[in-house]
Amino acid sequence: MFHQKYQSYLDLIEDCLIHLPFTDNLICQSMNYSLVGGGKRVRPVLALACVEIVGERPENFVREAAALELIHTYSLIHDDLPAMDNDDFRRGKPSNHKAFGEAAAILAGDALLTFAFEMLSQSLEIGPEKQLRVIRETAQASGWQGMVGGQVLDTVGNGQKSGLKEIESIHRMKTGALLTASARLGAILGGGTEEEIQCLSKYASYLGLAFQIKDDILDIVGESQILGKPARSDEKLQKPTYPAILGLQGADDCLKRTIASAKDAIGYFGFKAEFLSELADYVGKRDH
Amino acid sequence: MFHQKYQSYLDLIEDCLIHLPFTDNLICQSMNYSLVGGGKRVRPVLALACVEIVGERPENFVREAAALELIHTYSLIHDDLPAMDNDDFRRGKPSNHKAFGEAAAILAGDALLTFAFEMLSQSLEIGPEKQLRVIRETAQASGWQGMVGGQVLDTVGNGQKSGLKEIESIHRMKTGALLTASARLGAILGGGTEEEIQCLSKYASYLGLAFQIKDDILDIVGESQILGKPARSDEKLQKPTYPAILGLQGADDCLKRTIASAKDAIGYFGFKAEFLSELADYVGKRDH
Repeated sequence: MFHQKYQSYLDLIEDCLIHLPFTDNLICQSMNYSLVGGGKRVRPVLALACVEIVGERPENFVREAAALELIHTYSLIHDDLPAMDNDDFRRGKPSNHKAFGEAAAILAGDALLTFAFEMLSQSLEIGPEKQLRVIRETAQASGWQGMVGGQVLDTVGNGQKSGLKEIESIHRMKTGALLTASARLGAILGGGTEEEIQCLSKYASYLGLAFQIKDDILDIVGESQILGKPARSDEKLQKPTYPAILGLQGADDCLKRTIASAKDAIGYFGFKAEFLSELADYVGKRDH
Repeated sequence: MFHQKYQSYLDLIEDCLIHLPFTDNLICQSMNYSLVGGGKRVRPVLALACVEIVGERPENFVREAAALELIHTYSLIHDDLPAMDNDDFRRGKPSNHKAFGEAAAILAGDALLTFAFEMLSQSLEIGPEKQLRVIRETAQASGWQGMVGGQVLDTVGNGQKSGLKEIESIHRMKTGALLTASARLGAILGGGTEEEIQCLSKYASYLGLAFQIKDDILDIVGESQILGKPARSDEKLQKPTYPAILGLQGADDCLKRTIASAKDAIGYFGFKAEFLSELADYVGKRDH
């Protein structure tokens, strides 16, 4: 049931992503290379699930949900650059700069981020106030107060000295902010009440944290082949991680508590929260 | 008179830029480093002049005009990177990656672009439809169909084989698109008619072309000290330029014709077009 539902959201998103009005030139090839054929699409799936839980049809906001995947993809392309994490592989294939060169990779990232805002500002029937709010919140979550800010702390900041509080705050910015914005985008566009938007925000914030803890654990116990990227790269880069601070068992306990908190946050929705509740479990169980 | 007027727009913009709600962390330092203390601010000045020519007060849209300078600044930071034009100097001081390192420079560019959309989506009294249109057009002009697309052709494309048509099309995307979007932003937010928006677009498109031809000429005849960056860098990179194709005299003739076309385009506004008309002359006369 969960996987069928996930797949139905995924089908909507993939269909949107492969039909973006790109051409066949170099920049579009580079954008498409990283955008299609891979990824769990957690952000747009979360957005569509939030559209549905507040009572709207997910079909009506697929483009807006897909825009979140463009923002996520741009961040991966830039994160992989030699000046940043210097990763040669991503989603099981050469990273963008390995395939297209650094200049094209930087520009493809820039173009994906920009195009996301173009997608978010296309006319919708729900009225422009909600759209403006979504653009404002998405920009804020993606920028220096959110995702980019977290990446700065993670890449350029002095990570080795970090404690639990510091890495939690890094991840709240780096992963949590855009996930939270994804839930809010769905809830706002779907016409949710402020209380509903608030519950879903809280849920997404825990989900993001759980996601990151699991990522850190997978980096240690996972297989490169399944991860689609080299395992133990955090260790190599001496990045602060949950297992490094709490131990593997401690990180796993922390993951379980975080998933429980995520589920608590959506108690408000009763049985309608089934998919999101299972999504939280899925984040804890995934192997890549 | 022209310079006084220019300065009055400039004062509004500089005041906005130095009061952006940045903090003192690394990413904000890096953003601020490239954003403040330099630059002609042609894009926001053009936007404010277009607000005024269609009958609104420029004071009401300073933040939106200033957002264009953030987009322009991000593009300069990324253009200067080693993987791109590899410029060590910009506006008379070390380029961003020389001052803050490549990772911080990439991320500061990302954050400036993102923050521009946050600025453009703040509430205004004019109603959200016009704001959404401005966001949509600005994104389109800045992305793969516009500025980034032009940068790809300029940096990664096979420039040496280019003729006049090709470099004109590169510059229409690389410089022209965002200048045109700047004029349109001012005209749309200021409540201009479609005819007014159209005239100002056409004007800005010629202005952008004139700007680029003059840039190419200055790269040959200018002094590094006045330019704030090394002269003859186009030649070094074997970039296609107007003087390379038309000769210096031919490029100068082309510049004069382009400026005349820019002025023609705003004949519609009669004496109210004085500032924009002088702005076109200024672009032709500037020495940096």
